[in-house]
Amino acid sequence: MDFTINSIAEILGGEVVGNGETKIDNMGSIEDAGAGYISFLANPKYENHVYTSKASAIIVPKDFNPKQEVTSTLIRVEDAYASFTTLLEEYHKRKSFEKSGVEEPSHIGKKCDVGEGIYRGAFSYIGDRVKLGANVKIYPNTYIGDDVTINDNTIIHAGVKIYASTQIGSNCVIHSGCVIGSDGFGFAPQADGTYKTIPQMGNVIIEDNVDIGGNTVIDCATFNATIIRKGVKLDNLVQIAHNVEIGENTVIASQTGVSGSAKLGKNCILGGQVGVAGHITTGDKLIVAAKSGVSKNTKGGKTIAGMIGMDHKQFLKAYTIYRNLPQLVDRIKELEEKILHLKSENK
Amino acid sequence: MDFTINSIAEILGGEVVGNGETKIDNMGSIEDAGAGYISFLANPKYENHVYTSKASAIIVPKDFNPKQEVTSTLIRVEDAYASFTTLLEEYHKRKSFEKSGVEEPSHIGKKCDVGEGIYRGAFSYIGDRVKLGANVKIYPNTYIGDDVTINDNTIIHAGVKIYASTQIGSNCVIHSGCVIGSDGFGFAPQADGTYKTIPQMGNVIIEDNVDIGGNTVIDCATFNATIIRKGVKLDNLVQIAHNVEIGENTVIASQTGVSGSAKLGKNCILGGQVGVAGHITTGDKLIVAAKSGVSKNTKGGKTIAGMIGMDHKQFLKAYTIYRNLPQLVDRIKELEEKILHLKSENK
Amino acid sequence: MDFTINSIAEILGGEVVGNGETKIDNMGSIEDAGAGYISFLANPKYENHVYTSKASAIIVPKDFNPKQEVTSTLIRVEDAYASFTTLLEEYHKRKSFEKSGVEEPSHIGKKCDVGEGIYRGAFSYIGDRVKLGANVKIYPNTYIGDDVTINDNTIIHAGVKIYASTQIGSNCVIHSGCVIGSDGFGFAPQADGTYKTIPQMGNVIIEDNVDIGGNTVIDCATFNATIIRKGVKLDNLVQIAHNVEIGENTVIASQTGVSGSAKLGKNCILGGQVGVAGHITTGDKLIVAAKSGVSKNTKGGKTIAGMIGMDHKQFLKAYTIYRNLPQLVDRIKELEEKILHLKSENK
Repeated sequence: MDFTINSIAEILGGEVVGNGETKIDNMGSIEDAGAGYISFLANPKYENHVYTSKASAIIVPKDFNPKQEVTSTLIRVEDAYASFTTLLEEYHKRKSFEKSGVEEPSHIGKKCDVGEGIYRGAFSYIGDRVKLGANVKIYPNTYIGDDVTINDNTIIHAGVKIYASTQIGSNCVIHSGCVIGSDGFGFAPQADGTYKTIPQMGNVIIEDNVDIGGNTVIDCATFNATIIRKGVKLDNLVQIAHNVEIGENTVIASQTGVSGSAKLGKNCILGGQVGVAGHITTGDKLIVAAKSGVSKNTKGGKTIAGMIGMDHKQFLKAYTIYRNLPQLVDRIKELEEKILHLKSENK
Repeated sequence: MDFTINSIAEILGGEVVGNGETKIDNMGSIEDAGAGYISFLANPKYENHVYTSKASAIIVPKDFNPKQEVTSTLIRVEDAYASFTTLLEEYHKRKSFEKSGVEEPSHIGKKCDVGEGIYRGAFSYIGDRVKLGANVKIYPNTYIGDDVTINDNTIIHAGVKIYASTQIGSNCVIHSGCVIGSDGFGFAPQADGTYKTIPQMGNVIIEDNVDIGGNTVIDCATFNATIIRKGVKLDNLVQIAHNVEIGENTVIASQTGVSGSAKLGKNCILGGQVGVAGHITTGDKLIVAAKSGVSKNTKGGKTIAGMIGMDHKQFLKAYTIYRNLPQLVDRIKELEEKILHLKSENK
Repeated sequence: MDFTINSIAEILGGEVVGNGETKIDNMGSIEDAGAGYISFLANPKYENHVYTSKASAIIVPKDFNPKQEVTSTLIRVEDAYASFTTLLEEYHKRKSFEKSGVEEPSHIGKKCDVGEGIYRGAFSYIGDRVKLGANVKIYPNTYIGDDVTINDNTIIHAGVKIYASTQIGSNCVIHSGCVIGSDGFGFAPQADGTYKTIPQMGNVIIEDNVDIGGNTVIDCATFNATIIRKGVKLDNLVQIAHNVEIGENTVIASQTGVSGSAKLGKNCILGGQVGVAGHITTGDKLIVAAKSGVSKNTKGGKTIAGMIGMDHKQFLKAYTIYRNLPQLVDRIKELEEKILHLKSENK
């Protein structure tokens, strides 16, 4: 990034107060920012930092009137946080999209259909009949099996493995090490104690605007598709089993596992290390606390917690008592003694 | 897949009732199957679906006598489910085994011993003195260290990393992103608070008919071998630490971890996100509920559950009370008050 | 390894008692060691094994005086265990460092600064402006983004993915499949239920002497750096979120996750499958039992356990009662009946 404050203000449609010619080479929070940094004031609570900040530039709300002297140059905008995000996106866009063209050696199979502006890194492998939309970025050491489709502007980071017939939408980001389309875990027990593999014939469909973290694994369906709906955000090391469907805009934190054929609603939030049982369905806007289990069909619009998920408040009450169970036992002992005493008195 | 119903019946040794010339291009469950699909009736409960199914062909048991008109062509076989599985396997076999030959660039070291019918994908790396049996498939971007042995018909999917001296049996499937033979997690604490790495000298031995899911990690032993016995099925993102031994036909679901030197029996089933403590041994046919811990030596032939595993029924009873601990506390309070009352009455 | 007992004694600065010309080709524990093996006696408890061991050589403390006949050759040293570790390290060093030079095809970008004695495996990708110290080993199929720095003697195993601008110290070992520097999981909720990606501008800094297990993921910071301090040991499949700082010599077992902006102290030990909440801080020498949660700021120097971590002893007491909650309910029932009886008696 190599912008002047003036050029940034132009991107944001903001007004510069102070010296606009200073070059900006980094971004940071208002407390930590130093010379060359641009920062922002979104929460009035942090107003004091504006007067002490060493940032070269601070993005502030339109109606911000400094009550003390400010050494940083200010950029006044409608919504300071939104502007800062816009700026970060701009930076990010430039960073990600600077890679383009084809590095050799790389492999591309027969009958592929490749859009404009793509990047294919060295040692990337693309199978036969693959469709890549415009501006798709395939980083090095990536494997893309036969008959895969990846739509416009999607970024596949280094070392991702995508099995045959997977479909990926546009504007997705798939982080390094992800495995998409591996066989579902299906084995039929045999009379002699061994297992017969049930071949997994289906595929994985990932819709638009999906982000997937590093080393996450999504299995293909037995038949039909494992589906990740648009806007879903999956963190690192998440497990999505075969035949699962994750509803739109649902967010799943790291190391959570969703078992086979489970269907999660829209706009749900699952904490880290959650487990979702197989073949269950949840409503929309369900929130699941970290480390909890979703063990049965569950309505949306609430928060659950616990190894076998229950209402979150109930869980916290129960857990508080659980911590103090030894004291509870003491109370019961005391009661038992008192009753013994009362009985003997009664005699 | 491009078979007629007649050709499929031939594979299955079944008898065709209806038009056998229709081409089949997909498989599906009896409810969902449409034109071009083949399906099967294994459970008499679903007999009704036979009469409404749009599947082009349905595999049925030998003794099935339709009570209504059937539009699908039937294939009568001994065991419908087994036949369907056979068919899927046939498809899978063809799908996996269609890849063969060597794609360039790929790397193969010195003094390797390579069987017939193998596939070595582009950007696959094979070290020195590696032995690959007949029909072994090494997908692209895979790393196989020095002195590794992989026996007949084993499939190594894209991007797998196999460290030096690992031994893998025949008919195994290793999914993308697996790491096999990485150093066991062994560090000797030093007086100054630092740790000294204990080099891990052993290797990993994987026997025949083992399936391993995506991004699973198996560490090599400190000495000797970490052993995965024949018929074991490991799901995605499983952790197998150094010196572990997993008994024959044991099945381990996703995100479960087995700590160092633990020995699991045969035909055990571990749910997802289970933790097994180090240096413990279990009997055969132990079942462990999802999210549970196996914290000590445990006999087989039973089901355990809970963070520190206990009998499954006991766990469920305890958990039910746990959920309602606040009510239990209320009952104790009530008792305390009643006793106070009784005592005052007694005075 | 192909050493005589004499040559080993020389490495260790030890004194040989017996035939020093025997060749050693393996190492093992004193019980299991056979001909050609070298073993060690560190714990006097195992002295009996010295008299029955089939090991060709046994490393013993300087002051060890056999009370019976010994068939193995002895090597007397200051500290038997430390010597054994030294030996293992020697072996390991030779094993790891035998690879050197550049295998083709491999990719190296512009303006890189590469030290002496390095190894760059086939299909490894190194971006622009990368700095590699002396003796750095980059195994095959590895991806190293632009502007990465890796210092002396660090080993990057096959298939590791390191994002742009990551800094890695000297004497580190990064195992296969690790992802370092992937985007932190940051998304700003929008009014319409969708999420806007918050670009992650920071990087990852890994200091000296850090070991990282297979398929572990470390996200880059939103700003500044996610920091792994010197001497940290991370096991396989660990998740380190953005902005986290792990203190010196802290050890984290497999499948544990540390949420965003958490700061762990020095010399902590986290068991497997632990979860650490976001934005919390811990003291030094905190020990966390496997499967536990660290849900709030926690002082060091103690052991905690439980889904919402509490004192370990308190946890064990509570858990013991929890297991037997049904019996506790029975006691309460009994009390209730007795009181009913007493009351009726009182009337």
